[in-house]
Amino acid sequence: MEDLKPTPANSFPLTPIGFIQRAATIYGDSTSIIYNSTTYTWSETHRRCLQLASSISSFGIQRGHVVSVIAPNTPAMYELHFAVPMVGAILNTINLRLDTRTISILLRHSESKLIFVDQASCALIFEALALFPPEMKRPLLVLIADDAAEQDSSLPSFVSIRDNFVDSYEDMVKRGDSKFQWIRPLSEWDPIVLNYTSGTTSSPKGVVHCHRGIFTVALDSLLEWGVPKQSVYLWTLPMFHGNGWSFPWGIAAVGGTNVCIRKFDARLIFSLIRRHHVTHLCGAPVVLNMLTNSPDNLPLDRPVKILTAGAPPPASILLRTESLGFVVTHGYGLTESAGTIICCSWKSEWNQLPAIEQARLKARQGVRMLAVEAVDVLDPETRKSVKRDGASIGEIVVRGTSVTLGYLKDPEGTAKAMSEDGWFFTGDVGVMHPDGYLEIKDRSKDVIISGGENLSSVEVESVLYMNPMVNEAAVVARPDEFWGETPCAFISLKEGLSRKPTEEEIIEYCKGKLPRFMVPKTVIFMTEMPKTATGKIQKFVLRQKAKSLGPAPKSRL
Amino acid sequence: MEDLKPTPANSFPLTPIGFIQRAATIYGDSTSIIYNSTTYTWSETHRRCLQLASSISSFGIQRGHVVSVIAPNTPAMYELHFAVPMVGAILNTINLRLDTRTISILLRHSESKLIFVDQASCALIFEALALFPPEMKRPLLVLIADDAAEQDSSLPSFVSIRDNFVDSYEDMVKRGDSKFQWIRPLSEWDPIVLNYTSGTTSSPKGVVHCHRGIFTVALDSLLEWGVPKQSVYLWTLPMFHGNGWSFPWGIAAVGGTNVCIRKFDARLIFSLIRRHHVTHLCGAPVVLNMLTNSPDNLPLDRPVKILTAGAPPPASILLRTESLGFVVTHGYGLTESAGTIICCSWKSEWNQLPAIEQARLKARQGVRMLAVEAVDVLDPETRKSVKRDGASIGEIVVRGTSVTLGYLKDPEGTAKAMSEDGWFFTGDVGVMHPDGYLEIKDRSKDVIISGGENLSSVEVESVLYMNPMVNEAAVVARPDEFWGETPCAFISLKEGLSRKPTEEEIIEYCKGKLPRFMVPKTVIFMTEMPKTATGKIQKFVLRQKAKSLGPAPKSRL
Repeated sequence: MEDLKPTPANSFPLTPIGFIQRAATIYGDSTSIIYNSTTYTWSETHRRCLQLASSISSFGIQRGHVVSVIAPNTPAMYELHFAVPMVGAILNTINLRLDTRTISILLRHSESKLIFVDQASCALIFEALALFPPEMKRPLLVLIADDAAEQDSSLPSFVSIRDNFVDSYEDMVKRGDSKFQWIRPLSEWDPIVLNYTSGTTSSPKGVVHCHRGIFTVALDSLLEWGVPKQSVYLWTLPMFHGNGWSFPWGIAAVGGTNVCIRKFDARLIFSLIRRHHVTHLCGAPVVLNMLTNSPDNLPLDRPVKILTAGAPPPASILLRTESLGFVVTHGYGLTESAGTIICCSWKSEWNQLPAIEQARLKARQGVRMLAVEAVDVLDPETRKSVKRDGASIGEIVVRGTSVTLGYLKDPEGTAKAMSEDGWFFTGDVGVMHPDGYLEIKDRSKDVIISGGENLSSVEVESVLYMNPMVNEAAVVARPDEFWGETPCAFISLKEGLSRKPTEEEIIEYCKGKLPRFMVPKTVIFMTEMPKTATGKIQKFVLRQKAKSLGPAPKSRL
Repeated sequence: MEDLKPTPANSFPLTPIGFIQRAATIYGDSTSIIYNSTTYTWSETHRRCLQLASSISSFGIQRGHVVSVIAPNTPAMYELHFAVPMVGAILNTINLRLDTRTISILLRHSESKLIFVDQASCALIFEALALFPPEMKRPLLVLIADDAAEQDSSLPSFVSIRDNFVDSYEDMVKRGDSKFQWIRPLSEWDPIVLNYTSGTTSSPKGVVHCHRGIFTVALDSLLEWGVPKQSVYLWTLPMFHGNGWSFPWGIAAVGGTNVCIRKFDARLIFSLIRRHHVTHLCGAPVVLNMLTNSPDNLPLDRPVKILTAGAPPPASILLRTESLGFVVTHGYGLTESAGTIICCSWKSEWNQLPAIEQARLKARQGVRMLAVEAVDVLDPETRKSVKRDGASIGEIVVRGTSVTLGYLKDPEGTAKAMSEDGWFFTGDVGVMHPDGYLEIKDRSKDVIISGGENLSSVEVESVLYMNPMVNEAAVVARPDEFWGETPCAFISLKEGLSRKPTEEEIIEYCKGKLPRFMVPKTVIFMTEMPKTATGKIQKFVLRQKAKSLGPAPKSRL
């Protein structure tokens, strides 16, 4: 038995890149991409990716080089998810809502050789490159022209596009060789993507994923969510956010249709759902909130499946979303896991429960997916599993095929996130319920410690979300001389209210619904919440704001 | 980038064994197995497997040992697919329709340490062990008692069951420790199963598969066939046939219900489909034939999905099966691929075609599945790809994650099946159609060479199947002095015909539907076809019969 070893017939590197050639064979005449009035078939998308890859390689881009792209969810953004790895290079998608300074740092850190720039992000990139030290070699730039792009008012008139770009995207596609022999990875552990974290808690880190990780998470996500062949997928989730949870590859695997959009706009979403018979879309809970609060939120004429992740969805938002005809699946993942790795797998017996109870169960993150060996919640002090009581808080750890290889040029950060006994530390804090379903209570940095009690900001927020006047809510710690910290609530109100609540009314609303120590001691009304590019509320901004308030007045305690 | 290496948090060995613990968490209260009046939940099945594994290990069974089972599709057979690998051992399922001599050879070849024996197969195993050389150590035997087993009339009355078995299956389950810590593979390339090929063409070979191969083929099959969570799967396909195409693990992955049966019986199948709302079942085309020819073949009240593989299904059988309400998916695999690796992925545009054209398209084996890197058809002489013209015949080769590690104790056979450039040679002969769909024309040994023309016996058979009086048909070569070989048809007729056709009528029927050289020169009527344990017609038996006839008479040429 011992002499039976892997052979080249079974041990080739797993990679998602081959999905597209297969889609072209099976679904060649079916629609791969819809973008405004442009549509492509899978044959065309396959051919375009090969041609693009051949042109990328003609610029000297090779195995191991980093190629960046800054673009919204356009066909170019989708195609680059195949074309860049097809030359052996590593795709780095840049969040187009970042500031120029951060972009400049990322580009230097990644040593990006080539950048594909959407027309609307030209100024951003020019300014980022202007911050490069004069002696430093600049990456080559390719312009992705787009008639549908917003007028780029920030582009200085003296900057000549022609002088700054080596090529245009469509010219590269046209010029390329459709017979290009794409470069297979030498090992399935070869890097395929580099994603900088959006920074809800700390400075951006370059998360590297390999071909094997993307292959497994893409297929696992399709199985877990139940995505049938030839589904119609609407790109509400930015592909620059953790590669759209690896669905660019997944949708090719099932030969689905990618409906691309430049911007999230609830009215547009509802109209596209109807026009193209959309079956699936992804989004953070904030997207669900925007959909349900939209004046266009007519009930759907057929069910649309939503996969939500990225933040714990308040039960009330789940309820409202499902009442419109959406079927919500709730999962959990991080940039470091390349997609969802924990999912609230639904039990058919739960369908018998009252809607509010269903929403409460669904708000839990759930159980490990098939390509994940184990998840656990570890006590921060003993490093042992917490009790499965739904109350004992600990850090969520995971061991899964799609866990990152580590952080680029940051061996210390990599080592810190991985334990010797094979856990990846997520930095999220949660509990394990008696039924083995996990629930996140907070980012570890977001836990509020008041009078020695660990207090989950998410739980306070979920009560605030039940208030019919509240649009969005975020709770952070406010320093306090006596209690150490007290909960401070930031709230944005719904539009068109006949009267606005007072700070005291909000506090009163929480009493009775929460233990005394969890009731916010401070309420601050915001016209707009500070958010990351992916729509997550930036708690560190609010935390600074709360800190600058100084200690809460004694009268409130 | 180079210093980012796999870590224990992402590089643990892939294995399907963890699926069952996950099923117990998510689907703990749902039905895992139904067998006559016995039902289990996933919690129970998980616990039973752990207890069984603990008892297996108490017999000294360790990593790398072979444990055999000879049983029909009972709960025990299902549980052993998890319990044996849980102690690090390798599961060897024995085809219970094999003869004692072959079984004796297999048991010695595999060095099996322990055999689980279904009550109805006791005599078979006793006789097989009696053929062991006297000095050879015998494996331990465990009895799987079953009230539903057929009376085992061949068991000599003087054999005491008590004296021959070390334990009984249910006692092992009862006695075992439900907290047993199952043994994870050290590497994902560690063997998990050993299957002896059923021998349609040659002497049995011990095919070894590893954990990684089973993990990927199990998930890939679920995706390709579209098996939703909590499906109801009817075990018409024997688990001793290539581990039931790896669905024992797949059904645990989706938390489905396994409906177990001891024997194929069309009336029982139709009754179970209705009683348990069966959604999925697998079977070779002969199973489809038996279902459609059954007097109980009432149209189904809801669609049931069938995955058929193992032999090319004649279009006429596909048509008849689908007319009853079955939805047939056609795939291709071998014992050496642990499940289907090529599948006739359906294109929605084909739904517009006439039924007969749909059946013709569906009779093709199709395209590579997602975990398969490549398939091709190679010219036997040049070893290059044949033309994609649907006519040029060559050998089908494949490179896939679930391709066998090789044949046990047969380095020569292993080397012969694998080429240095990474192909596994299937021994099947086929063509590539212009649309990239592959179609099998024959086993390489079944090709008939008549007057220098390569003639596909499958094509002749598919014409014979169109004849409404034909139940089953098999065409082999009959030696001929002038032509080299001529096609010789063996036919079984349907029951209850008012008159039976003559040899000449069958030959006449084929003329005009086939080129002259493909029309059978000999027709032999059979009351029953010789078959392998998995229901495949044993062409080598028919070939010997045809050979013994001597050359065909000249008048027929």
